[in-house]
Amino acid sequence: MNQTTQIPQTSGPALPSVTTGPLPGSTRVYVPGVLHPDLRVPMRQIALHPSAGEPPVTVYDSSGAYTDPAIATDIAQGLAPVRGAWVSARGDCVAYAARAVQPADNGFATGERLVPAFPHLRPPLRAVEGKAVTQLAYARAGIITPEMEYVAIRENLGRTAASGSARDGEDFGAAIPDLVTPEFVRQEIAAGRAIIPANINHPELEPMIIGRNFAVKINANMGTSAVTSSMAEEVDKMVWSIRWGADTVMDLSTGRNIHNTREWILRNAPVPIGTVPLYQALEKVDGVAENLTWEIYRDTLIEQAEQGVDYFTIHAGVRLHHIPLTAGRVTGIVSRGGSIMAKWCLHHHRESFLYTHFDDICDIMRAYDVSFSLGDGLRPGSVADANDAAQFAELETLGELTRIAWAKDCQVMIEGPGHVAMHKIKANMDKQLATCGEAPFYTLGPLTTDIAPGYDHITSAIGAAMIGWFGTAMLCYVTPKEHLGLPDRADVKMGVITYKIAAHAADLAKGLPGAQARDDALSRARFEFRWEDQFNLSLDPDTARSFHDETLPKEAHKTAHFCSMCGPKFCSMRISHDIRAAAQDLGAQAEGMAAMALKFREKGEVYLPAAEGAE
Amino acid sequence: MNQTTQIPQTSGPALPSVTTGPLPGSTRVYVPGVLHPDLRVPMRQIALHPSAGEPPVTVYDSSGAYTDPAIATDIAQGLAPVRGAWVSARGDCVAYAARAVQPADNGFATGERLVPAFPHLRPPLRAVEGKAVTQLAYARAGIITPEMEYVAIRENLGRTAASGSARDGEDFGAAIPDLVTPEFVRQEIAAGRAIIPANINHPELEPMIIGRNFAVKINANMGTSAVTSSMAEEVDKMVWSIRWGADTVMDLSTGRNIHNTREWILRNAPVPIGTVPLYQALEKVDGVAENLTWEIYRDTLIEQAEQGVDYFTIHAGVRLHHIPLTAGRVTGIVSRGGSIMAKWCLHHHRESFLYTHFDDICDIMRAYDVSFSLGDGLRPGSVADANDAAQFAELETLGELTRIAWAKDCQVMIEGPGHVAMHKIKANMDKQLATCGEAPFYTLGPLTTDIAPGYDHITSAIGAAMIGWFGTAMLCYVTPKEHLGLPDRADVKMGVITYKIAAHAADLAKGLPGAQARDDALSRARFEFRWEDQFNLSLDPDTARSFHDETLPKEAHKTAHFCSMCGPKFCSMRISHDIRAAAQDLGAQAEGMAAMALKFREKGEVYLPAAEGAE
Repeated sequence: MNQTTQIPQTSGPALPSVTTGPLPGSTRVYVPGVLHPDLRVPMRQIALHPSAGEPPVTVYDSSGAYTDPAIATDIAQGLAPVRGAWVSARGDCVAYAARAVQPADNGFATGERLVPAFPHLRPPLRAVEGKAVTQLAYARAGIITPEMEYVAIRENLGRTAASGSARDGEDFGAAIPDLVTPEFVRQEIAAGRAIIPANINHPELEPMIIGRNFAVKINANMGTSAVTSSMAEEVDKMVWSIRWGADTVMDLSTGRNIHNTREWILRNAPVPIGTVPLYQALEKVDGVAENLTWEIYRDTLIEQAEQGVDYFTIHAGVRLHHIPLTAGRVTGIVSRGGSIMAKWCLHHHRESFLYTHFDDICDIMRAYDVSFSLGDGLRPGSVADANDAAQFAELETLGELTRIAWAKDCQVMIEGPGHVAMHKIKANMDKQLATCGEAPFYTLGPLTTDIAPGYDHITSAIGAAMIGWFGTAMLCYVTPKEHLGLPDRADVKMGVITYKIAAHAADLAKGLPGAQARDDALSRARFEFRWEDQFNLSLDPDTARSFHDETLPKEAHKTAHFCSMCGPKFCSMRISHDIRAAAQDLGAQAEGMAAMALKFREKGEVYLPAAEGAE
Repeated sequence: MNQTTQIPQTSGPALPSVTTGPLPGSTRVYVPGVLHPDLRVPMRQIALHPSAGEPPVTVYDSSGAYTDPAIATDIAQGLAPVRGAWVSARGDCVAYAARAVQPADNGFATGERLVPAFPHLRPPLRAVEGKAVTQLAYARAGIITPEMEYVAIRENLGRTAASGSARDGEDFGAAIPDLVTPEFVRQEIAAGRAIIPANINHPELEPMIIGRNFAVKINANMGTSAVTSSMAEEVDKMVWSIRWGADTVMDLSTGRNIHNTREWILRNAPVPIGTVPLYQALEKVDGVAENLTWEIYRDTLIEQAEQGVDYFTIHAGVRLHHIPLTAGRVTGIVSRGGSIMAKWCLHHHRESFLYTHFDDICDIMRAYDVSFSLGDGLRPGSVADANDAAQFAELETLGELTRIAWAKDCQVMIEGPGHVAMHKIKANMDKQLATCGEAPFYTLGPLTTDIAPGYDHITSAIGAAMIGWFGTAMLCYVTPKEHLGLPDRADVKMGVITYKIAAHAADLAKGLPGAQARDDALSRARFEFRWEDQFNLSLDPDTARSFHDETLPKEAHKTAHFCSMCGPKFCSMRISHDIRAAAQDLGAQAEGMAAMALKFREKGEVYLPAAEGAE
């Protein structure tokens, strides 16, 4: 099922090969728009065995064209720029000659060490002078963009009417609709409660929405470091991560070749790509934080905005007077961006240029529709430091900055911790909602204990599920390698699947309409011994199948009414079927067991359908 | 570090080999008693690098003599029966000739297929006629047994005084003491809020306590099935599971050789062993549930009580009139024991013999001090079925049975679900506390979504951490193989580590005194780049080390001030150290950074320690 598309190699570094082909039992389908009939909104349909007598189960699909066998993907060509027509139709952008790529953009890599430039570069677009080309600006103007209708359709997963059944869940004051309409999307964006990260220079994007009143999303981090990894690996990891459900990808590359690696990733990414521009800026000053300047940083923002990065993490909330608040911490400052800016601030005895030039940054963001992800540079790196003065002081500043960015029509989300024991998680969400005007919260975990390096995908999935339930809109994954090394392909998959679990658990708990349909379909398959359906409906069909086959590999066992866990005699589900049959034989056919139950509750103790009153 | 002790094989099935030797950097130490000076209560001390300037970190140790290189363990001899003297000193037991082992006890296995009998059998003990030899009976009589003092010392992990510092946590009305005293243990047991599962015929036991006001414990399930696994594997898995932290082990064996396998496990188990006697009883009637009788079941209880099983899961709460309540469920009855008893009840049109003979069962339990684990035969097997009428009706019955068992001086805990979405978890805990008089709750997960077979250790760790926080006393692990097959050694370890995470996260959140010490020590090691300390303090040092070494294998990197995740230039922790140094250079030595922070908050915006007022 999984194929690997190898790009013929010419010279220089290896070109990427990525995994393509549908997931087991799955078909990528497309739903058209109504307001914008040319939209083709992707979803994944999982077919069930005919014996189920059920329609296919539709699930969210972030995997892009790579899982559609009808589309020939080619990494060296990039994905089709479908969104380009929507952007140009708005008539508020102009194409211009791109900023020239400098040797420093790629860390002065040359020859064999230089990642080749992506072969098909387009001239970048930017807003007509003075215009804001952001989804927020359009939403405020009452315009429902193709992007807005796209995400509305996408969130509904093929549902076209509210179910009418009672909602099950606790949403802590959110306003989750029964059915997402394009107008609801527009309102949420206009209110700042949701964002669609969608740079006008990223036409390959399949738009998605991040907000408390929608499905919880997940982000996968990747990127090269000075110590390890290559461009080909990073492109492969990006495609691999979206195959398993990453909704956005952050390219956190450091070291050489940052510019060219990012171009390859963007041109092949159907999901929003986020970055931390400070990392590249720091490379340009050879890692000496004090040598950073606004001019170098500004140039880096434009460089990346022109390439199409959809959101920037900007640690503008680290203010000079916050830094001493970290002095008593067990783990100081653990955000890379936060520590770099803190060092700069202390060295220069000044507020950071991110804070003092925040208005200028907004002007760049609005000209390309790059969304803010306001970084939590002072997040806690240990449970001892959670919810401390430094963390919450920065959050207040992020609230201030949110209002400034909104005044400039910029889309904003807010980054959150970190390491937080369970009893302190809800305070983070409540404070973020109150301080940041309900701008979407985007948290890393949080990790609920510090004692399990090697398993921090799990320590953090606990916190992530909870904070997702409480209202966090997007969860940044943590892989098993957290604190220990750079994640490889297997780690990326483990991180993504783990966070799909956390996000889905949150969706169930907050009562997202339709979310439980997949659980119910899988549970019915389990109860009816439709093993293939159970595998195919799971988040990772390959692993579910291989675990089953370790002890019962034969095809015949795929219809067996037991597994190796209990064996045939002790299979509770098989016995449950016997019980149902027995109960029916005992005369329950007419009234059904539920009605019988009522009768017993009325009559008291004795359950004797066949011979009432007998012992 | 890990050695394998191979027992020379004679004939017949393979004899067990188990992993022995200390964990990295660790020493098993023993703390004596005060009331009972001969007690040697085990703890594990993790030594830190001299540069830390810190004492060793003491952690709970469930691993038994296997991690003590000073003790030569021999699977064919069994562990030393240290507890035997405490039991006999009470003078309320008599030794007698054991019930003769029947061919049916081992599923009529013969010759090569028969697991050999354990070579050193002791005559069993039972209470003097009419006596209750339970910890509950002693507690009520005001007696502090050696077992009670043992667990008090064990819970304190070497702390001998309350810390005096403010407690951090939300305990939802629990009564967690600053320091556990033997008298507190006695009171908790007398109140039924805690149990020490400790069969008088299990003298190899290192006592442990299960209760809401103590550290959260975890159980690891194992056992053969008709389809796979062997005695040698099960003994190995038991030792392996306690090496990683399992507090109790349930032997859920089915198929042949149940009796002899259990004997090998018990004689080598320093942790309480639980079983579901119904499984063996069903094997004795060749898997035909309707043919079960009270007499066969009763004989099985005595067989297992004589061997030393510490707690029995007994599904006496499945009443006839509950069964129709499961008719509308998505996944019917998913408890093996529950489904077997439901089938029996329907076939015979009667209440189950577990319910009608509950008094008789109590008489057996009190004669050996086997604790009840009242089974949740009607737990939900899918999120759709959570918190339904069947589940809660059974819980009411479990409350009734608890009071009957308590009247007979029997120790009781209550089993709980299952599959429950996050927003429905707390209701389970609240209802259990209210219905069952605060008897300890012992839950399987709960799994917070159904859509991730292959990852149900994670779907359930989320629910387990939460319900542990809310007050559950013991968490039954779930392995990655749940729903798919029998767990192997790797699955057992993954399940145990995952549940140690959940239990510890719960301890932090409920504010268990001292729990955060290990987190803090590890975080300090992380911040100070003491890599070896970070590995050794983690729940799984071997995995943490191997993940780190995948990208930076050299010994020199064990003291490097970075890892491959960020590389040297982007290491926030390294930069944090620079920041601290810089801040100190700037004149902060005298007053400290915390005082400076206060000053800034008083004065407002500007942070200029070196040249106040200058720009």
